[in-house]
Amino acid sequence: MHDSLPESIVIRDVCPRDGLQPEQPIDISERVRLIEALVTAGLRKIEAIAFVSPKAVPAMAGAAEVMAQITRHDDVTYAALVPNRRGAEMALEAGVDEFTATVSISETYSRNNVNMSTEESFNAIAEIVSIADEIPIDASISCAFGSPYEGEFAASAVGALGARLLDIGVSNISYADTTGMATPRLIEALIDEVGPDVALHLHETRDTALLNAYTAMRCGVRHFDTSVAGLGGSPFAAGAGGNLATEALVAVCDDAGIETGIDIDRLIDAANLAGGLVGRPIDGVAKVGPRTRLSGTRAL
Amino acid sequence: MHDSLPESIVIRDVCPRDGLQPEQPIDISERVRLIEALVTAGLRKIEAIAFVSPKAVPAMAGAAEVMAQITRHDDVTYAALVPNRRGAEMALEAGVDEFTATVSISETYSRNNVNMSTEESFNAIAEIVSIADEIPIDASISCAFGSPYEGEFAASAVGALGARLLDIGVSNISYADTTGMATPRLIEALIDEVGPDVALHLHETRDTALLNAYTAMRCGVRHFDTSVAGLGGSPFAAGAGGNLATEALVAVCDDAGIETGIDIDRLIDAANLAGGLVGRPIDGVAKVGPRTRLSGTRAL
Repeated sequence: MHDSLPESIVIRDVCPRDGLQPEQPIDISERVRLIEALVTAGLRKIEAIAFVSPKAVPAMAGAAEVMAQITRHDDVTYAALVPNRRGAEMALEAGVDEFTATVSISETYSRNNVNMSTEESFNAIAEIVSIADEIPIDASISCAFGSPYEGEFAASAVGALGARLLDIGVSNISYADTTGMATPRLIEALIDEVGPDVALHLHETRDTALLNAYTAMRCGVRHFDTSVAGLGGSPFAAGAGGNLATEALVAVCDDAGIETGIDIDRLIDAANLAGGLVGRPIDGVAKVGPRTRLSGTRAL
Repeated sequence: MHDSLPESIVIRDVCPRDGLQPEQPIDISERVRLIEALVTAGLRKIEAIAFVSPKAVPAMAGAAEVMAQITRHDDVTYAALVPNRRGAEMALEAGVDEFTATVSISETYSRNNVNMSTEESFNAIAEIVSIADEIPIDASISCAFGSPYEGEFAASAVGALGARLLDIGVSNISYADTTGMATPRLIEALIDEVGPDVALHLHETRDTALLNAYTAMRCGVRHFDTSVAGLGGSPFAAGAGGNLATEALVAVCDDAGIETGIDIDRLIDAANLAGGLVGRPIDGVAKVGPRTRLSGTRAL
């Protein structure tokens, strides 16, 4: 494992999907506006929508309409979460660039979240692969750093699931810390096992997300799923906190000289737009700006 | 600079002083209860009180009464913030074990916070030293990693102020990231300059506190000021966030095998007690427990 920071990283913003999913439904035009604000900020990979049952997840209704209303940019990858063959077919129809499919290493989380076993989820991904055509599939392994039900999983078991997914044809594995149980120790153990050419999806449940991302970057990881404004968090696991905020990671990368291609000021605009959509003020970098933004000489 | 984690660290909890200072005044008996909850959790250094003007800082009124009501433990250091000779005299009278005195490297922050220049604050510390007798003095340099008014300070300038304070007889320097402007780059630069035998006092303004603490531990730093429940944050600087939460640091140390002497479950009790005193629920580890605390198999 090398121990120097990468020159650049690639951030995929998952707010329009993972961030908004647990919220009250938001107008399609506003969801489009958020996606376009992220593009304006410099994001080139966005998890935009999910083709899931609108009855089960009302906030994700209207996925095809969102895709239809976006002003597409050739250099932006618009991804959709697809839970099964039917979702994948709809996503193909809507013209998405990438699929996200998830499987949990935690049987209990899997049952609670999608009412399927880990193996059934794996098989659903295999079906998605079979019809995906040229569309790349990002497979996300949830609870990769532990689950509140079973505790910790061996890195070898988590890595083995990733290897099986690559074997059946997914393009990339994203290891998700769904309930904020990752620590530097577990990040290093997993990257030791699977190598740095993976994506990480980190949550702030225990204030560790930025520490874990930085630890991963020191291990050579260059791909991160984050959510502008830190929105998100599974409703199916006790105490799941929000995602790592895109702006928190970008601010630290800017300071460390790690290229992200993202303009922090425009990103903060997007974070505050997202906060407005969900009706909550956003703390942290979105509120106070990056450390380079001075406040004049008046005490506030 | 070595790059392995220490076997143990020493945490000083500053919640009863730094954490409660910006809050509405709380009954003396409740402040005593919080201090004793921290002792029960295993804390052996506590910033308990401040001998400041009750008119300027109503929440810190009754410092002598707090000290009088505490059940003292021989192995616990009870520290008091003292702004000047008068405060130090009162603290001596009250029987505290350690003084905290502060000086800001930022002239503007200093003016806004205590209406004195940096040099005037330095001279006030010299006066405190002159009457401190055998009482050790922890000198805290605020805005050590930048100020929202002047921006970044050279590590050499920050270190030079620390060296001058040691020269006049303070026992230890605590470098404070008052407004959450520290980053791994600045932590490493400062520790390169002053060596690891210092304390750090970190804030969560930009979600960086735990990352900065971990970076410092990798540089060999073993002394941290934290606040249970993450309470605190200067009212005199725009956007100053709360302190690094003691429980967030302890949870990560427990996972990394770094001894703190603190029982995370009792510490979470203290965090929730502190939250009750200020009337706010506390998120993070205080809410969900350490990663080792499983939640059974029911979806919540």
